[in-house]
Amino acid sequence: MQAFLDDNFLLHSDTARELYHDCAARLPILDYHCHIDPRAIAEDHVFADMAEVWLGGDHYKWRLMRANGVPEEEITGSAPGEVKFQRFAEVLPRAAGNPLYHWSHLELKRYFGYDGVLNGRTAPEVWRQCQKKLPSLSVRQLILQSNVEVICTTDDPADDLRWHQAIREDRSFPVRVLPAWRPDKVLNLEKPEFPAYIRRLSQAAGGKIADLDSLLAVLRARMDFFHAQGCRVSDHGLDAVPVRCSTAQEAQAAFEKALRGEALPAAECEGYRGFLLRFLGGEYAARGWVMQIHYAALRNVSTENLARLGPDTGFDCMRGGDNGAGLPALLDDLERGAALPKTILYSLNPNDNAMLDALAGSFHGEGVRGKVQHGAAWWFNDTKRGIEEQLTGLAASSLLGNFVGMLTDSRSFLSYTRHKYFRRILCNLLGPWVEQGELPFDRELLSELVRGVCYKNAKRFFAFPED
Amino acid sequence: MQAFLDDNFLLHSDTARELYHDCAARLPILDYHCHIDPRAIAEDHVFADMAEVWLGGDHYKWRLMRANGVPEEEITGSAPGEVKFQRFAEVLPRAAGNPLYHWSHLELKRYFGYDGVLNGRTAPEVWRQCQKKLPSLSVRQLILQSNVEVICTTDDPADDLRWHQAIREDRSFPVRVLPAWRPDKVLNLEKPEFPAYIRRLSQAAGGKIADLDSLLAVLRARMDFFHAQGCRVSDHGLDAVPVRCSTAQEAQAAFEKALRGEALPAAECEGYRGFLLRFLGGEYAARGWVMQIHYAALRNVSTENLARLGPDTGFDCMRGGDNGAGLPALLDDLERGAALPKTILYSLNPNDNAMLDALAGSFHGEGVRGKVQHGAAWWFNDTKRGIEEQLTGLAASSLLGNFVGMLTDSRSFLSYTRHKYFRRILCNLLGPWVEQGELPFDRELLSELVRGVCYKNAKRFFAFPED
Amino acid sequence: MQAFLDDNFLLHSDTARELYHDCAARLPILDYHCHIDPRAIAEDHVFADMAEVWLGGDHYKWRLMRANGVPEEEITGSAPGEVKFQRFAEVLPRAAGNPLYHWSHLELKRYFGYDGVLNGRTAPEVWRQCQKKLPSLSVRQLILQSNVEVICTTDDPADDLRWHQAIREDRSFPVRVLPAWRPDKVLNLEKPEFPAYIRRLSQAAGGKIADLDSLLAVLRARMDFFHAQGCRVSDHGLDAVPVRCSTAQEAQAAFEKALRGEALPAAECEGYRGFLLRFLGGEYAARGWVMQIHYAALRNVSTENLARLGPDTGFDCMRGGDNGAGLPALLDDLERGAALPKTILYSLNPNDNAMLDALAGSFHGEGVRGKVQHGAAWWFNDTKRGIEEQLTGLAASSLLGNFVGMLTDSRSFLSYTRHKYFRRILCNLLGPWVEQGELPFDRELLSELVRGVCYKNAKRFFAFPED
Repeated sequence: MQAFLDDNFLLHSDTARELYHDCAARLPILDYHCHIDPRAIAEDHVFADMAEVWLGGDHYKWRLMRANGVPEEEITGSAPGEVKFQRFAEVLPRAAGNPLYHWSHLELKRYFGYDGVLNGRTAPEVWRQCQKKLPSLSVRQLILQSNVEVICTTDDPADDLRWHQAIREDRSFPVRVLPAWRPDKVLNLEKPEFPAYIRRLSQAAGGKIADLDSLLAVLRARMDFFHAQGCRVSDHGLDAVPVRCSTAQEAQAAFEKALRGEALPAAECEGYRGFLLRFLGGEYAARGWVMQIHYAALRNVSTENLARLGPDTGFDCMRGGDNGAGLPALLDDLERGAALPKTILYSLNPNDNAMLDALAGSFHGEGVRGKVQHGAAWWFNDTKRGIEEQLTGLAASSLLGNFVGMLTDSRSFLSYTRHKYFRRILCNLLGPWVEQGELPFDRELLSELVRGVCYKNAKRFFAFPED
Repeated sequence: MQAFLDDNFLLHSDTARELYHDCAARLPILDYHCHIDPRAIAEDHVFADMAEVWLGGDHYKWRLMRANGVPEEEITGSAPGEVKFQRFAEVLPRAAGNPLYHWSHLELKRYFGYDGVLNGRTAPEVWRQCQKKLPSLSVRQLILQSNVEVICTTDDPADDLRWHQAIREDRSFPVRVLPAWRPDKVLNLEKPEFPAYIRRLSQAAGGKIADLDSLLAVLRARMDFFHAQGCRVSDHGLDAVPVRCSTAQEAQAAFEKALRGEALPAAECEGYRGFLLRFLGGEYAARGWVMQIHYAALRNVSTENLARLGPDTGFDCMRGGDNGAGLPALLDDLERGAALPKTILYSLNPNDNAMLDALAGSFHGEGVRGKVQHGAAWWFNDTKRGIEEQLTGLAASSLLGNFVGMLTDSRSFLSYTRHKYFRRILCNLLGPWVEQGELPFDRELLSELVRGVCYKNAKRFFAFPED
Repeated sequence: MQAFLDDNFLLHSDTARELYHDCAARLPILDYHCHIDPRAIAEDHVFADMAEVWLGGDHYKWRLMRANGVPEEEITGSAPGEVKFQRFAEVLPRAAGNPLYHWSHLELKRYFGYDGVLNGRTAPEVWRQCQKKLPSLSVRQLILQSNVEVICTTDDPADDLRWHQAIREDRSFPVRVLPAWRPDKVLNLEKPEFPAYIRRLSQAAGGKIADLDSLLAVLRARMDFFHAQGCRVSDHGLDAVPVRCSTAQEAQAAFEKALRGEALPAAECEGYRGFLLRFLGGEYAARGWVMQIHYAALRNVSTENLARLGPDTGFDCMRGGDNGAGLPALLDDLERGAALPKTILYSLNPNDNAMLDALAGSFHGEGVRGKVQHGAAWWFNDTKRGIEEQLTGLAASSLLGNFVGMLTDSRSFLSYTRHKYFRRILCNLLGPWVEQGELPFDRELLSELVRGVCYKNAKRFFAFPED
């Protein structure tokens, strides 16, 4: 019997253990997509208590607590941090098979040196041990201890990126913290706050957006600004990938109506989004950026909790149905215009995995390894099994050796352990292939593969600027 | 090599064997959803022959026989029971990997003491052995031998529940047999038999249903009656969960048209159903009942066999597409009205598993463990692999420790072995987690988990009345 | 550690090894669906070089090369064969987990006697060894060495089948090469080339197609001709199975419009297809043919590459959504008309697996084993895991013992190794069932099962004419 969470956690063959310890574990992290706050890095935030660093902003943990009937007061409310910690600890023994069971213990072990099992009984002792450790765990310390080389945050086109600049100018911190371009608000013209957002974007750009042309000009200028700040990757969060694509005239008409605050038929909104995605894709291609498309989330399903707690608090789920139907035409249109950027596709619904693998395999670029990729298992799929399924499917229909690998997609500074989790699962997948004669036992081939997926492929694919 | 179907059947690790034999095997059964006939219990039915008890009403077995080309005469027709038994036995050697191969042998072993392998050659001998045993296996004996504590049948609102009352009044039978509320006929207003059904419901209620208000009043009265008879759970069989929801006025108009026998547009039917589900959900919440929603069955696909054999005879399959799209708004609307009952969601299409796990995780109740749950693998998914997938997905996205576990959903009195089947699979899933270091080896934690999923969670969740 | 690709490749238990070596390996191949060119067989084509036989026409391999950024010139272009071979070899080390890694090495081993590992370094040596072997590997030699008994090609109704006749008349070649009826062009009336195609079909039939009646008459005559040439199986490639079905009058109107080159609304095209499928299904039933339906491919997603390279060159992917919604009514309508042929259903999207298993289980024929079947894992799903999933699902919901098993669906004469690949996976699936006590260890039962799925079931199901 293997001890819980020992050094060979998730590594069930000699080959897996060798690949992980000799190769994967030592590689730096390129966290090319996350949601952490650059200001906290710039100011090297120190956490008030264990509840802030560990439970604050972590809607994964909140959902588990709610699923156990914990009152909101003791989750996101004004209960003392120690009570919240206690409540979470009490939930864990019921969470067998949940990645949080692993992530939580990995985080306690790695950052706080706690080797035992967290539950309702051990919680007070664990709280004390972690609290003692906490003052030495500032945001930058957490990042440095995690061997992170690059972090890409998630930023609005109207953002002034001041914190990124501050971090870059501070020569004492060696990790590159780069912005990522997330123009969702530009695409969501059906939202009531759209006109106000466009005014804010105008101001950020120091210009005036009066029509579609000026919008596109401002977006280009902001992309140039982001590029100069080291941005090399965009990100889109879409309910469904638009199937429609407006002409420029139609998009112009829709944009003007939206600016005037007029209600728009769904088809016009979708067409505008289709138009803008093609415009943006071309701009990404021109700049050598990577386009990320995340789709099929169904957000804020609980109206009551949206009103009470706001978005991104644990009340999102996934869309059923065919939300990626617009992807083939989007990629095709871009390719026909010689404007297809490097692209990573993520669906929140795992039913799309096979389709995305097949689709990615239909678009290529000469001289580019894996130009269109099916991205790592996302959010609800970021589990041992979800990761195995994504890797197995990708490997079976494309080249695993070109995959750009893992990202945290997280709001927490403790989530770098997820890269380790992913790397263990990757090595564990390869082990039996070798030991059962499905892959030659060739150390060079195997370690190249692991090194590529864990680090080198992303480095080459994103081509982040050197400092 | 492990012997076929020995005591450690499906238990492939020491931990699994310990958990099953020391804990799971001994727990009583709470069969909170099935389709057995309460009259047969009240009258303590004794079966005419092995074909009646074993093949009668079991459309799972019928399908297998048909898939082998057996003539209908020898399946549901007038052929002698022994011939039907022989035909089924001849099919079994082709059924490797089918749960019926296991269920059949488990049933023969448990209830008839037959330890061997059933096939065309052994069939006559097995028939004789079983026939000898049969007189001692009345309905009540079967239930008592199976260590069943509670049975919930499936009952129409117009039902007088006389058999439930008879069973309760018979103090010699200690098992609680409770009704469950299944108002499908109230929702299916597009059916030609709807007006006649509503008249029958009026009579059952001793009132008159002339409009929507009186329908709702009668439904409330019938729910009170069911509640007094111990009902704590409802069940809905829906093709697709309605996306539309009518206003009360629209629902009233649709109801009146349907009563007059007028044809209704599909959208009006759907809206009426959406309205009624919200009404009923609120009533369930007010009474502390559990709402079950089963959807995505595609029933009676063979017109010819529907005409010849009627419904529920093995000619149903599953819907593709997005049949659960109406769920988020249904749950949200109920929650906003403080009217969300405890809920269990089942889709017949396993593509919905991930979506249901994510959706259930977005609705909660303070003080309630697992208020909205993704139910056990249903019907075509009630297989070793289907159960493993449901458990793995639920565990990965929620709290396995709160899951209310297995139900038979069966028309047969021999199906309690499926609870054992489920419990073995559950223990077998946990075993490697522990032995490979993914879960601490903590006997208390593990047996609490198993005891919860197999018995205690359902007991707490349904809160059936004590006698 | 098992050596790469040794004799026990993919066979991980004693039972699996015994079943494969003693039973499965020795059985002849009935390749009831493929896309090889009968002319190449008739003329006993000898290949110019290793690139032609191994990379020519194989869009699986092309996709992998493109995914690695290899220029098209070195894939399908005019680069020398040795360069193309080199490029493909360089890609392989990145293809861990891809069936091409296995297929390629199996092909090199079986046909060219190469036992090592192909990669960029070994490529020149492998090229030389294979080139030396090539002159002895004519098309017929490849087929004979593969122990093939029957090959069904894929043929248009307008085809004169001259090559099939030539092969049959050549008594020196013992393998039966039969035509298969693929009338896609008759169904695709929305294509601009439809009128020209119908003229070609008229000529082939020596008649004149002026209206729907004469079309149906010609189709009947062509089916009779195909039948006389040994055809026993049809094949349909559908985007989605039509949900609509026109009346004869509507189909007639649509057909006439299409003949005149008029544009047709999508609904009329779909209705025509629904009508024609029912007509054809009845004709198949009358002749004892098997109907194959392949659906959910999304073809030619890259407009640029379609223009440059044509169809079937590696730019297809799969449809999302509900593409099989028309199947239940199609099968039901045929059954009601006593016109349901033996049928095999294949979806390219694995999300349909469970639905197809359930659907197939709802249609039967007295005296026919497995009248409606869910076909073997197709194309993107033709992987170790895809095959396991199809077999596991089919077994769990029907009779694995009646499954007609594998087909190559290939354009390459080297693809017979895929039958071996499938057979190994089948035996490997059964092994643990037996050794873990889920199936009795009964050599007769097991080898009957294997013999059935690998050979005998297809022989009985298709009932190909003896020479």
